[in-house]
Amino acid sequence: MQKRLDLTLYLVLDPVLCGGLTGMIETTRMAVANGVTAVQLRSEHPLERSEWYNAALALKEVLADTTVPLLINDQVDVALAVQADGVHVGQSDLPVKIVRQLIGSERIVGLSVSNTAQMQAVPWSQVDYVGIGPIFPTTSKGDAAPVLGVEHLQSLVQVKQGPAVAIGGINSSNIVQVLQTGIEGVAVISAICGQANIQQATLQLLQQIKQARMQF
Amino acid sequence: MQKRLDLTLYLVLDPVLCGGLTGMIETTRMAVANGVTAVQLRSEHPLERSEWYNAALALKEVLADTTVPLLINDQVDVALAVQADGVHVGQSDLPVKIVRQLIGSERIVGLSVSNTAQMQAVPWSQVDYVGIGPIFPTTSKGDAAPVLGVEHLQSLVQVKQGPAVAIGGINSSNIVQVLQTGIEGVAVISAICGQANIQQATLQLLQQIKQARMQF
Repeated sequence: MQKRLDLTLYLVLDPVLCGGLTGMIETTRMAVANGVTAVQLRSEHPLERSEWYNAALALKEVLADTTVPLLINDQVDVALAVQADGVHVGQSDLPVKIVRQLIGSERIVGLSVSNTAQMQAVPWSQVDYVGIGPIFPTTSKGDAAPVLGVEHLQSLVQVKQGPAVAIGGINSSNIVQVLQTGIEGVAVISAICGQANIQQATLQLLQQIKQARMQF
Repeated sequence: MQKRLDLTLYLVLDPVLCGGLTGMIETTRMAVANGVTAVQLRSEHPLERSEWYNAALALKEVLADTTVPLLINDQVDVALAVQADGVHVGQSDLPVKIVRQLIGSERIVGLSVSNTAQMQAVPWSQVDYVGIGPIFPTTSKGDAAPVLGVEHLQSLVQVKQGPAVAIGGINSSNIVQVLQTGIEGVAVISAICGQANIQQATLQLLQQIKQARMQF
């Protein structure tokens, strides 16, 4: 099915936090059925390349009949190997220009941004969206940059020249503050992965997004 | 310069064991000037993708005016990004068929083999050579398979259907035994990297290879 880049509620999957391959598959199926709009495979712990490949293949299959794109974090070769819909890279990954050359013009490229200087340097002609974070403290990413807070997020949103998604410690208790900045979407891991009721967690976040969009 | 796949004396570079980027560059320059025939960039420790990229770019430059190919371990996207001469993958990396598709037909693909079953499963139409090991105990690779020993190497050499290089703990004290199996070449890390005199270490290994080839 034709994929659509919609950053509204962006699920980042981590094998450890989401219960391994089986957990990632089940979480994705349930979360997407209830409205998650984008899915990224990421791993903070080193994985064998074959594990990345098998997980990406399985997730691609789960999303096959949906408009929800699958993005692969960092591993451009895995993205190419499974013909994923895009890649998300950080500031310490391959240069974005090279990533765009490798992945081609049709696929999605996302870039992490953690401060004003990085935002000003974003090559928007090569990038489809940026991920801004971490907004709040998070345990999901060991090497995360300093926490930005909502005020700094607000200032970054004001200078950005393309779509963005906020990431880092976002959950139902703080999602409204994040959306008040006018950002296009939020990315979550733990607010969906590992929750006792994936459906309920997803629906609650979407309800909050809907209400926040009506207010601001 | 046109590259040539010659497995005779194959240097595997590890950033930690070879003194970081500067050490890898200096070691490569000296080792290749004295007869090393192939170079692979590998890292047992997780590296940022940008570090892989920068190291690969620098090594490609060092080898630009030589016939010695640069191979990248595992990271097919890094190999593509710097247009390296090939990749070397293990049994837990991307499937060889996929690696060949990504890297194209012109570049070198090497595959690690650690036992008879893996040797029998080698897709020789996709692979330019195999790396057999570890032959002896080694501290260079934390997740290495069980030590093969020279007898098992001998049996693998007898059934292989293409060129091979032996790897794992090979140095001037045991290189002759390895070559007596009739294998095309040997791969070394510590026998060159970190040696006080890179030139002397390289020349000694090559002299031993030459003598062994005359005898057997």
